[in-house]
Amino acid sequence: MSFELKCVTMLTDFGLSDETVACCKGVLLSKGLKLPIIDISHEVPPFDIVSGGWILAGALTFMPVGIHLAVVDPGVGTERKIVILHVRRGDFLVGPDNGLLLEAARRLGGIETAWSVRMELFDFSRISPTFHARDVMAPVVGDLGMGVPPSALGKGIKKEILVEYPLPEPKMEDGKITGYVAYIDSYGTVRTNILWRSLRKDIKNLRISSGWLFSIPVGRTFADVDKGDLVILEDSWGYLSIAVNQGRASDLLGCKPKDQISVEFTMQ
Amino acid sequence: MSFELKCVTMLTDFGLSDETVACCKGVLLSKGLKLPIIDISHEVPPFDIVSGGWILAGALTFMPVGIHLAVVDPGVGTERKIVILHVRRGDFLVGPDNGLLLEAARRLGGIETAWSVRMELFDFSRISPTFHARDVMAPVVGDLGMGVPPSALGKGIKKEILVEYPLPEPKMEDGKITGYVAYIDSYGTVRTNILWRSLRKDIKNLRISSGWLFSIPVGRTFADVDKGDLVILEDSWGYLSIAVNQGRASDLLGCKPKDQISVEFTMQ
Amino acid sequence: MSFELKCVTMLTDFGLSDETVACCKGVLLSKGLKLPIIDISHEVPPFDIVSGGWILAGALTFMPVGIHLAVVDPGVGTERKIVILHVRRGDFLVGPDNGLLLEAARRLGGIETAWSVRMELFDFSRISPTFHARDVMAPVVGDLGMGVPPSALGKGIKKEILVEYPLPEPKMEDGKITGYVAYIDSYGTVRTNILWRSLRKDIKNLRISSGWLFSIPVGRTFADVDKGDLVILEDSWGYLSIAVNQGRASDLLGCKPKDQISVEFTMQ
Repeated sequence: MSFELKCVTMLTDFGLSDETVACCKGVLLSKGLKLPIIDISHEVPPFDIVSGGWILAGALTFMPVGIHLAVVDPGVGTERKIVILHVRRGDFLVGPDNGLLLEAARRLGGIETAWSVRMELFDFSRISPTFHARDVMAPVVGDLGMGVPPSALGKGIKKEILVEYPLPEPKMEDGKITGYVAYIDSYGTVRTNILWRSLRKDIKNLRISSGWLFSIPVGRTFADVDKGDLVILEDSWGYLSIAVNQGRASDLLGCKPKDQISVEFTMQ
Repeated sequence: MSFELKCVTMLTDFGLSDETVACCKGVLLSKGLKLPIIDISHEVPPFDIVSGGWILAGALTFMPVGIHLAVVDPGVGTERKIVILHVRRGDFLVGPDNGLLLEAARRLGGIETAWSVRMELFDFSRISPTFHARDVMAPVVGDLGMGVPPSALGKGIKKEILVEYPLPEPKMEDGKITGYVAYIDSYGTVRTNILWRSLRKDIKNLRISSGWLFSIPVGRTFADVDKGDLVILEDSWGYLSIAVNQGRASDLLGCKPKDQISVEFTMQ
Repeated sequence: MSFELKCVTMLTDFGLSDETVACCKGVLLSKGLKLPIIDISHEVPPFDIVSGGWILAGALTFMPVGIHLAVVDPGVGTERKIVILHVRRGDFLVGPDNGLLLEAARRLGGIETAWSVRMELFDFSRISPTFHARDVMAPVVGDLGMGVPPSALGKGIKKEILVEYPLPEPKMEDGKITGYVAYIDSYGTVRTNILWRSLRKDIKNLRISSGWLFSIPVGRTFADVDKGDLVILEDSWGYLSIAVNQGRASDLLGCKPKDQISVEFTMQ
């Protein structure tokens, strides 16, 4: 744990209209934190752990080592744990134990050590049952950033008991990969969890099954197909995505995060 | 005034699409300001002083001592004052004299000293009549942050002449509290200005009158009622709020900021 | 090039919902950058170079000297250049060579030197064809911010070969100025590229032609006309704008960025 921390990042589904995000930042500054605070997104679709966890992972790959606070927390106020994960790259991830942090942790080299935040350290009369982000998680992030060791904030737990990221790994069978929709971006592009490099390089078309069956050409950019046509692309994080040139693939395919998607290789 | 300033915050109704917020930040940096700049919200409903003032107060309670620029200013370009308020906690609040700053000032311990910005210090040929935030208020914030005393920027005024925050304090009568809607959040939850601790603790239901009369159970989180049902909760700032589990209470109750709301205690 | 750089700014059409903006900031921090990063806007209408270039210019006028990353890039992945512009005021502008940067460069005193980024410096196997902002431009900005000379990052080019900002300069004829719509703000106010000081000062009404012909009074603020009425104002950057008091001028006039607009002087 001798890595130098360079930033604090935040990802939530709180939106930007009210004062909730600012309250968390106020708590961080009140702890004396001097690191730059980078917003990843506060517009994760409400309660959508799949989407939140996916874009968290996509962002952290390009962040320097830091402390990352992620809050998409439908179980706030229940008995679910709040966890601190220390990953191989040196980062700390803080958030609810609902799988949100685990795809990012995996891409940062995997979890080295995990702690469950000791709720008894907090004065319960001052914790809002619906705002643990401000009253528990932000103080933990602030303390970590000021050099408090995680073992003073949480109880060591086995990483095997952590709730998993909700998307299973894609499965390969003969000539077919079955994966999942991980995120629909603001252009309606469907981002999947199927690694691009798991596909054969000489493929010209893929048959996508998401309820209906589509045969879609493989391209390099949107512009490789006509306006309104579907195209399969490597996204900017190395995964398979499905787009429509100047249109919304998610509407055309009728799919949403967590939907299963099958890819068949064809040579024509 | 020997408090150390830790941050500058900004709250406006400018939105995030154009360059107005960035222009204000540019002015702050051009003054040499080194403090972190925290955005509270730039999506206050246009001209809505009640909502803006309420979330400003909710945010500042959790911020370290700083300088806070708040601009919801339907009177921009008219003769309304621009004021600097120094509050007991040590913060400076800067904004239009229309009540926007006063709920926050109250929660930070009340106003110690108030100044009206001397407009004659500014070159009028360079002030846009519709953008005092950039041309007057941001320079004042920047100067304060660089150590210029407020008395060099404004003329001392009696705090009694300041325009009040538009929401009156709730009134208590026998078995009934009458308060006001202070903010509708992005989930449609109705946040009122009725202090939770002013309610009796043994109450199971409240009768809410906002035009119609509703008997609503008191809960701890949304999930304490069925989907679509109303529930009364303590919000994360210690006030009474009305929510619908996975729905919009503001639509169901048909209420908006500044509407009066009465709460009757019932024991059943 | 001995100007001290005070900030890095970012303007994109990426939106704030996914992790794209954060990835770029992660790259900047990973380069070791310590300058404050100011967001101008990430909600430029997708691919709208006119709007993006206009608000970039409006923001940079009020920013201290810095490095400015602007990305509205319909040609991403094609052979269009990525350029570094050093302007008279001392700033560096980095972005695609599609005219986006040129209005801002002009207002900051004009281009002193221009470079085309050497794409061969980058490992192509690691560049996403649709995300040059993260994989090429952000690294260039980070390097510039850490003191790498632009000549080490790009090949000097003649500024005359740069793609121009898409809006032509307004033309004056007898009693008439013909300019263009540069931006529609979130209130529907139509901001043009016609300099206010190019108008005669004694004018009370202007006849605006944008398809239809409108005679519109000149005012100082929105409130100078009745609710729902059109008014011509100097905007906060010194240009002619057309607004409706509590309404949307862009809807009433039916105009959008790049539309031509003619202004006739009348004395009544």
